[in-house]
Amino acid sequence: MFTHTHALQFEAKPDGPDPDFARKMQEVLGGQWGEMTVATQYLLQGWNCRLPGKYKDMLLAIGTEELAHVEMIVTCIDRLLDHVPLKPDAADRTKEAAAGYGQHNPQHAIANGGGASYMDSMGNPWTGAYVTASGNLYADFSYNATAEMQGRLQVARLWNMTDDPGVKDLLRFLLTRDHMHQQQWLAAMEELKADGLDGIPVPEAFPLDEELPEFAYTFIDASDGPEAANGRWANGPALDGTDNVLRAAPIAATADAPILPPGDPRLYGTPPAPMTGLLQKAKDALK
Amino acid sequence: MFTHTHALQFEAKPDGPDPDFARKMQEVLGGQWGEMTVATQYLLQGWNCRLPGKYKDMLLAIGTEELAHVEMIVTCIDRLLDHVPLKPDAADRTKEAAAGYGQHNPQHAIANGGGASYMDSMGNPWTGAYVTASGNLYADFSYNATAEMQGRLQVARLWNMTDDPGVKDLLRFLLTRDHMHQQQWLAAMEELKADGLDGIPVPEAFPLDEELPEFAYTFIDASDGPEAANGRWANGPALDGTDNVLRAAPIAATADAPILPPGDPRLYGTPPAPMTGLLQKAKDALK
Amino acid sequence: MFTHTHALQFEAKPDGPDPDFARKMQEVLGGQWGEMTVATQYLLQGWNCRLPGKYKDMLLAIGTEELAHVEMIVTCIDRLLDHVPLKPDAADRTKEAAAGYGQHNPQHAIANGGGASYMDSMGNPWTGAYVTASGNLYADFSYNATAEMQGRLQVARLWNMTDDPGVKDLLRFLLTRDHMHQQQWLAAMEELKADGLDGIPVPEAFPLDEELPEFAYTFIDASDGPEAANGRWANGPALDGTDNVLRAAPIAATADAPILPPGDPRLYGTPPAPMTGLLQKAKDALK
Amino acid sequence: MFTHTHALQFEAKPDGPDPDFARKMQEVLGGQWGEMTVATQYLLQGWNCRLPGKYKDMLLAIGTEELAHVEMIVTCIDRLLDHVPLKPDAADRTKEAAAGYGQHNPQHAIANGGGASYMDSMGNPWTGAYVTASGNLYADFSYNATAEMQGRLQVARLWNMTDDPGVKDLLRFLLTRDHMHQQQWLAAMEELKADGLDGIPVPEAFPLDEELPEFAYTFIDASDGPEAANGRWANGPALDGTDNVLRAAPIAATADAPILPPGDPRLYGTPPAPMTGLLQKAKDALK
Amino acid sequence: MFTHTHALQFEAKPDGPDPDFARKMQEVLGGQWGEMTVATQYLLQGWNCRLPGKYKDMLLAIGTEELAHVEMIVTCIDRLLDHVPLKPDAADRTKEAAAGYGQHNPQHAIANGGGASYMDSMGNPWTGAYVTASGNLYADFSYNATAEMQGRLQVARLWNMTDDPGVKDLLRFLLTRDHMHQQQWLAAMEELKADGLDGIPVPEAFPLDEELPEFAYTFIDASDGPEAANGRWANGPALDGTDNVLRAAPIAATADAPILPPGDPRLYGTPPAPMTGLLQKAKDALK
Amino acid sequence: MFTHTHALQFEAKPDGPDPDFARKMQEVLGGQWGEMTVATQYLLQGWNCRLPGKYKDMLLAIGTEELAHVEMIVTCIDRLLDHVPLKPDAADRTKEAAAGYGQHNPQHAIANGGGASYMDSMGNPWTGAYVTASGNLYADFSYNATAEMQGRLQVARLWNMTDDPGVKDLLRFLLTRDHMHQQQWLAAMEELKADGLDGIPVPEAFPLDEELPEFAYTFIDASDGPEAANGRWANGPALDGTDNVLRAAPIAATADAPILPPGDPRLYGTPPAPMTGLLQKAKDALK
Repeated sequence: MFTHTHALQFEAKPDGPDPDFARKMQEVLGGQWGEMTVATQYLLQGWNCRLPGKYKDMLLAIGTEELAHVEMIVTCIDRLLDHVPLKPDAADRTKEAAAGYGQHNPQHAIANGGGASYMDSMGNPWTGAYVTASGNLYADFSYNATAEMQGRLQVARLWNMTDDPGVKDLLRFLLTRDHMHQQQWLAAMEELKADGLDGIPVPEAFPLDEELPEFAYTFIDASDGPEAANGRWANGPALDGTDNVLRAAPIAATADAPILPPGDPRLYGTPPAPMTGLLQKAKDALK
Repeated sequence: MFTHTHALQFEAKPDGPDPDFARKMQEVLGGQWGEMTVATQYLLQGWNCRLPGKYKDMLLAIGTEELAHVEMIVTCIDRLLDHVPLKPDAADRTKEAAAGYGQHNPQHAIANGGGASYMDSMGNPWTGAYVTASGNLYADFSYNATAEMQGRLQVARLWNMTDDPGVKDLLRFLLTRDHMHQQQWLAAMEELKADGLDGIPVPEAFPLDEELPEFAYTFIDASDGPEAANGRWANGPALDGTDNVLRAAPIAATADAPILPPGDPRLYGTPPAPMTGLLQKAKDALK
Repeated sequence: MFTHTHALQFEAKPDGPDPDFARKMQEVLGGQWGEMTVATQYLLQGWNCRLPGKYKDMLLAIGTEELAHVEMIVTCIDRLLDHVPLKPDAADRTKEAAAGYGQHNPQHAIANGGGASYMDSMGNPWTGAYVTASGNLYADFSYNATAEMQGRLQVARLWNMTDDPGVKDLLRFLLTRDHMHQQQWLAAMEELKADGLDGIPVPEAFPLDEELPEFAYTFIDASDGPEAANGRWANGPALDGTDNVLRAAPIAATADAPILPPGDPRLYGTPPAPMTGLLQKAKDALK
Repeated sequence: MFTHTHALQFEAKPDGPDPDFARKMQEVLGGQWGEMTVATQYLLQGWNCRLPGKYKDMLLAIGTEELAHVEMIVTCIDRLLDHVPLKPDAADRTKEAAAGYGQHNPQHAIANGGGASYMDSMGNPWTGAYVTASGNLYADFSYNATAEMQGRLQVARLWNMTDDPGVKDLLRFLLTRDHMHQQQWLAAMEELKADGLDGIPVPEAFPLDEELPEFAYTFIDASDGPEAANGRWANGPALDGTDNVLRAAPIAATADAPILPPGDPRLYGTPPAPMTGLLQKAKDALK
Repeated sequence: MFTHTHALQFEAKPDGPDPDFARKMQEVLGGQWGEMTVATQYLLQGWNCRLPGKYKDMLLAIGTEELAHVEMIVTCIDRLLDHVPLKPDAADRTKEAAAGYGQHNPQHAIANGGGASYMDSMGNPWTGAYVTASGNLYADFSYNATAEMQGRLQVARLWNMTDDPGVKDLLRFLLTRDHMHQQQWLAAMEELKADGLDGIPVPEAFPLDEELPEFAYTFIDASDGPEAANGRWANGPALDGTDNVLRAAPIAATADAPILPPGDPRLYGTPPAPMTGLLQKAKDALK
Repeated sequence: MFTHTHALQFEAKPDGPDPDFARKMQEVLGGQWGEMTVATQYLLQGWNCRLPGKYKDMLLAIGTEELAHVEMIVTCIDRLLDHVPLKPDAADRTKEAAAGYGQHNPQHAIANGGGASYMDSMGNPWTGAYVTASGNLYADFSYNATAEMQGRLQVARLWNMTDDPGVKDLLRFLLTRDHMHQQQWLAAMEELKADGLDGIPVPEAFPLDEELPEFAYTFIDASDGPEAANGRWANGPALDGTDNVLRAAPIAATADAPILPPGDPRLYGTPPAPMTGLLQKAKDALK
């Protein structure tokens, strides 16, 4: 259960409107790596978590914080849209150049009347397909760490796309929180390992003796780039705590070319024999 | 440029048809964490990679291997579909129970004539929105590691959903390669760090002195779960190489409730004043 | 900014697992008219609202309540999934009939490990395209009232699809809140009208003298159903506060068949003249 | 069954091309609230209607009219695209400013060769997910009324985004019909109530004594906005015809924090106990 | 402009309900190759057609007929849904086996109240992305011919999935019309060629001397299947009216491996040099 | 199984950056008719093909070639993005005009850091729903021929949208291959017919005596365009090898207006009788 306060976690006040940047900022609101994704994802992982205690509590704590980030970015976009140009003529473009007009999102005016929406910078609506909650915390925390990396990367790029001091203040806050959150998920993965709950390879509980050992430590090279095997991934000790050694080998086939049996004639796929015969057979079969 | 051989990297031959499991197996072909995602993602990251050498070469090598995995899973699904029941009556269900019929994907028969397609186990088509290629290798390798964890997790679950020895052989191979690939991406992240190319917080090149230090090492608790701060993420040294210390604090507002200015009357949002006046004003403005 | 408590607004505890019903219940979590839609929609309308005061405050109050409903339904689905059958054989189906196995959502096991996700009962992910926040409160409150009607209708149908007393208790709560919320949005529309902020036709601020009066009160009949005009919509006083009278008329054309000019030859649409000549012309034009 | 005439219900002839506005106009063709939605929705509601007579006849009459609106908007967009600029150089921009070029939809040229398509102004394809046909006419007519409000609002905004007299004539027609159609659906809801077929709360046939009365008339306040309860929605008589009184109360938890049981080990979620033990157990279980 | 009659073009009356088949039949209503696609596609091609006369008139004639097919299939599905089972217990399954219950679409009951919707047999909503209207009639008629082939194929498969004589009557009608329509589009392509309006290679107006002749008649073999070149496509005279001869050759590279320049440091992609130096440079650049 | 070489099948090197054109070029990479579609489609048709030999071998050969086309277009887009403008001010626009800035895709910078992605020119992600593999080769080859026509048409349009000689060289190659591939699929259809494997009407194996002969050769005219029947499609011998003759007839109803029975009261659709009675009945039924 949630309660809400109108006060913001951090200020979200641009110095002036900028519909061009408002469109860009939608990416970190409603894009694949935006705040909608992390807020709803951390909450869902927390609600679904079947292990009571610190991990579940932490997930719900941070998911709730992220809702406040959604709120701040929506507020910032709203203010960037205080003056949306309606037409490409001079009178409508108070401070925007022609370029800025061309770039802006027409739905911000037509559909939202000068407000934000749950879409990315190209207008794709946010989708629940961005959210992963697998029930395996190690795999999910790895995804969460990724989300904070991709998210901070996008905000860092946006930083170089605006000169508005008010917008930059909000971006600064988001960059800092994403910095903290990267540490948070990496720390949580360490803790899961320390608690003996999972590890590499995820899921650790799957019995390794069911695997095929000759494929477990081999980097398979299927391209002619000469340096593909010149990295840690093809040399040195395994990273899964065993005493195996990583190595490289070219890709090789181990099974014959597959031959599929003919399809069911009632599905009218291309038959294995001339139609003349088949036609009769099909008719017979269907009588 | 690619060349193809009909021989398979590994055998993909079920002992018998099973349209129920064929539907489930679509998840690791065309789902968010399926082989289509990793094949097309690693290739795109490789093509887009602006750093020549080992990382680019490695990406294209593994992306090409993953195409062979797409091929094997398609082949396996095709064979599981050798006999698709067309109706829920006895004659059609050679070995499937009623339950199996109910679960199977009707498009496998109607649209694909007994063949696989690029969709997940609930019939959602695979989408390019699953693919991330940010241009920042550290962030992307983290995503790749996640993909191999989520992928191996799903294959491990499928393992417990079938008794077919031929299918289990292919799953065994996939589990093993995902084991290797988890190591591969983690090793590649270590190497990027060792090469001085990036690190935590990603992107490391963004100047830390632009951040707000009071928010960079604080776990913010916005929920009443009592153990939320009892983890490594809120205690101990920072994970970013600095000598800061992680700590916890409750969520707090630092900015006032936002007040937005009235909207442009030409967008007909709800006005700040009674309509009577506004109606006149709007009419005047529009004359 | 939000804070969260682990305690639930209302109990969400089925008497036993039921993966068949868990799939059905996803409809009111992540479907077009589910709780994700109303929670995120009311919050977005509230954040975007440019009119400070009671309407904005009310929107944020109810949006926050709806987040608690998302939480309860997720929790209920999680418990319905306490035992997901993995295969269609007897041992796996503790209490579910074959039918129940056939109906259940395989992603609940493969992708979510026995947890809920943001999708509807057919597996379509929830999308931001379900959300409307137009900036015009009258139009949006009308949509909100609709959402509560469609939502209550779906919960009422689910009521008849389960015998589990624990599930029915939660459905009872949802039915009751949707009852209240229907009243809430209708009351808010009345209040907007009373405050002189908008009315029929929405948006009232658009000057009526720009309309074509002959089309404003006429029900146009384009089908041969004999009773189409036997309703209030084609008889009696207008519903927009004017003294006009509604009437009916058959559909009629008022403009000629359109003739479009030839397309740009550089776009290679089908040309208006034989290719022979055009081919030459195109070649000439492109030299 | 339908018949078609080439003559248009109303003229759709811009005074000149304007690819910038052509893109914007796609919103009311193929957007969530565009003519494709209302045409296909009213027809589907009509076909699905299980109550013969005036309601069904009316639905099919208006759905058929809306097809003519789709046709007019397509025709208008086609003409606005009579000259699509192919490059951002001077020679290509007959009358469009740089801004207009920047804004235009490149698919109008590349994919459609100077023609309209079923997408919105940001290029999202129209989707059947926009359509609601619940079988409950009261709920659906409420949605239809909303659609006409949102639709008229968008057309009114477009009105302020163009100076072309021909385009404005068509918009004028659409504004007028949406005016009529708002009345039509509100009248139809009144008639349903008068006919005793449904009412508030929808669906009225669900027995109220199954509800929880303490939640049926209470506005629940979950935010700190001071005016949230200062409206009709939290004061005065109920709107459902009963003699209850609306009131307000702060949000409160009535159930404990949920504790979920451990998951099925065959799904490899994070286990409740250290892996060491579990690993053994899992291996044992899987032998 | 359209008018509608309630009478059906052909009878659509199943002998009894069958929710299992109702779900399957959605494929030819709202799937990629269903009636929604052809109806809306032919109409759009007709409206967008810039060549007045027989082609435009024909497109609008057949598009209008296809609307009647949408209507018949909706009606048929509605009747198949006359009794939707609500639960997997005996009392609800009048004539359906457990299998049939498992297969049915739960949204047919929850969302549509026993009615059809614009989705395919796996529940994906119909999308405008299925529709192609390129402005080039030859390319579009080829797509239309394909649509009628894929559509007839799917109906032929459905034919073998039901024993209901009433359903089979409607399928029979659809099979027959798709037979006619295949001829229609092939005839229209012949006529376009005879009229000198287009031909192979489409678009014929693109000057062939801009092509690279060495690649225009060569089947390029990139796989080791031994029979790939044993077909008409790699032997005999060209099919474009020239006197060239088709031949085969193995795939070969003609350009070097690409080397991309380093990215813009403001986008924080992985840099070409160790971070230490870059970090300083980036900081300097950003000061 | 695949192997990859870094060398390109053909050069993909623009003379200079052009983010405006980079966005446009996405259409033929990740659009409905782009290279992602044909590559993944031909491979899937090949893998699913149940007829061993020349057709299967040919499909896998060309599908593998198309992967090389994906690679070349990605590379070309990457280079066009060598300098992406970050803001609409003078310093950022090295050679692009304001218009070019307005048109460019902001995700190319924010999400991809100056790289291509699997989307079309309006930012819609590529989807597996574009791919058809029906198991019937004649129907699928017809779709493949269409894809090459639509694809060549789009490349021909792009040709007129750029002056960059390097880009034009790549387009020239693509135009030439699409020329060859149109011939290839048409030749393959001829060969299928010659081999007696299928023909018009597809699928030929469906017994014609199950059809309704009166509808098999009649062009049905449902519109008032006077020339609709003045084409080959309504005159002359049938195209299916029979000795029937094509003719035209106006659309006509052959079945009565459908009357649907009342719905299940447990679904709360609008009832056939006044609520007063129904309400009681529903309550009784539900007790």
